[in-house]
Amino acid sequence: MSIEELLQFLDEHFPQIRFSGKNNPDALAEMEIISVGPGTCTMRLPFYQKNLRPGGTLSGPAMFALADVGLYVVILAHIGPVGLAVTTNMTINFLNRPNPQALIAECQLLKMGKRLAVGEVRLFTEDDNSLVAHATGTYSIPPVR
Amino acid sequence: MSIEELLQFLDEHFPQIRFSGKNNPDALAEMEIISVGPGTCTMRLPFYQKNLRPGGTLSGPAMFALADVGLYVVILAHIGPVGLAVTTNMTINFLNRPNPQALIAECQLLKMGKRLAVGEVRLFTEDDNSLVAHATGTYSIPPVR
Amino acid sequence: MSIEELLQFLDEHFPQIRFSGKNNPDALAEMEIISVGPGTCTMRLPFYQKNLRPGGTLSGPAMFALADVGLYVVILAHIGPVGLAVTTNMTINFLNRPNPQALIAECQLLKMGKRLAVGEVRLFTEDDNSLVAHATGTYSIPPVR
Amino acid sequence: MSIEELLQFLDEHFPQIRFSGKNNPDALAEMEIISVGPGTCTMRLPFYQKNLRPGGTLSGPAMFALADVGLYVVILAHIGPVGLAVTTNMTINFLNRPNPQALIAECQLLKMGKRLAVGEVRLFTEDDNSLVAHATGTYSIPPVR
Repeated sequence: MSIEELLQFLDEHFPQIRFSGKNNPDALAEMEIISVGPGTCTMRLPFYQKNLRPGGTLSGPAMFALADVGLYVVILAHIGPVGLAVTTNMTINFLNRPNPQALIAECQLLKMGKRLAVGEVRLFTEDDNSLVAHATGTYSIPPVR
Repeated sequence: MSIEELLQFLDEHFPQIRFSGKNNPDALAEMEIISVGPGTCTMRLPFYQKNLRPGGTLSGPAMFALADVGLYVVILAHIGPVGLAVTTNMTINFLNRPNPQALIAECQLLKMGKRLAVGEVRLFTEDDNSLVAHATGTYSIPPVR
Repeated sequence: MSIEELLQFLDEHFPQIRFSGKNNPDALAEMEIISVGPGTCTMRLPFYQKNLRPGGTLSGPAMFALADVGLYVVILAHIGPVGLAVTTNMTINFLNRPNPQALIAECQLLKMGKRLAVGEVRLFTEDDNSLVAHATGTYSIPPVR
Repeated sequence: MSIEELLQFLDEHFPQIRFSGKNNPDALAEMEIISVGPGTCTMRLPFYQKNLRPGGTLSGPAMFALADVGLYVVILAHIGPVGLAVTTNMTINFLNRPNPQALIAECQLLKMGKRLAVGEVRLFTEDDNSLVAHATGTYSIPPVR
């Protein structure tokens, strides 16, 4: 699937997350798909105030959401919109506290099986290029009917 | 710390999450502390529309946030507001897709060390009492000055 | 499956682990099934010298193996010897360094699905009854033919 | 620390694992350090019969041990033999069943902090160069006295 097709699918199925700049004041988060390649994608989480945590750092759940959606996007790009993959497991290591700025997520598939997909995500700050978190996730792939 | 003291501390340090019913339209989430005991606490995430996912289920990041804040609250209740514990690691297993309803989190400390605390969380749906997720998290405890 | 049936199956399929007291000098480990119940089992790892680590503590891989085999046994007890479940993911938190003594593993299923099973394990020292590690694991269940 | 120094330290502190070809019939495993670089190391687990699992595949605990020791070696190479790092958390994803052959572990530090180190490991089969597992681990660094 192209980025255009991915955005259309995501806007339709994940109205809670703003992907393509449409105005939605109730959106939980706003994310951008920077690029999609073979087994990889790059996502961007713009900085916004409500993800701030004490000390001016970004919230863990916002980073979790970025990693989760990023892996979902890679899988979707590979299997197409045939059904909905479900996150079964996610482990995230928070490495360094990010300063308040946009985050970049480099997502990579480690396995794309018939029943399970596993991927890894590295989260960087956009301005400093500092590694702030690492996540691995497992997704259950729905059976083809 | 009592629930009153916890709520006051959390409202001050986590303005992005609504704990005590104050009106904040930009809140990322709204959570309630049901009870706090020795090494345990019970949290509640009221159902709200923006946490919905495709198929009418609740979002993973909302469940992650509930588990993360729940463990933070148990640790805070034990060490007091001397400093800010930092999440270093979180693993969450999504077990069953919850129907759209409030979630209850039973949080329990497994270890309360000088440098690290480890806890576990079981997430249930409030109406069905169905186990929907399990999480374990590690927190770095700041050195006493 | 009864403990007798489990031991027979395990001896046949896991000759590297000694379950029923048979002599095998090349065994990686020796484990005992103490009890099996609905969604649970209790395992025991006798203390032996080669699992020692610097400082007189027990090795992480030995604790990992005990948790992994324990969850395998619970799943086997539930689905029967129809096929081999495969570990897809395991997270282990080491909480306290155990003294050199036997370990007890309390294993509990959190989910027993058609395709995936998820369980949790608490590892205690036998003499001190001290919680030394906590693990969660995911297993892929082979399709019924 | 050089590989020579690492081997000497490991032989002394981990007599249960054979590192430098010394004869030890009770060794839990035999591992080789192939190379050590800035924030990285490569380990090798020779194939041996007792790590076999049903279906001719390698055991999870053996892969866990290789990843755990590999990260321990990278940390040791960086902080020197001043004290013993302790594994606090390990998550391992088993991706593909390896055929019976030697395993190569590519280990990389993600964070080398004062109190915690975090690293990631990719396990490949030596002959096929197939990615069979991915692990992330956290280690507690002892305070400098």
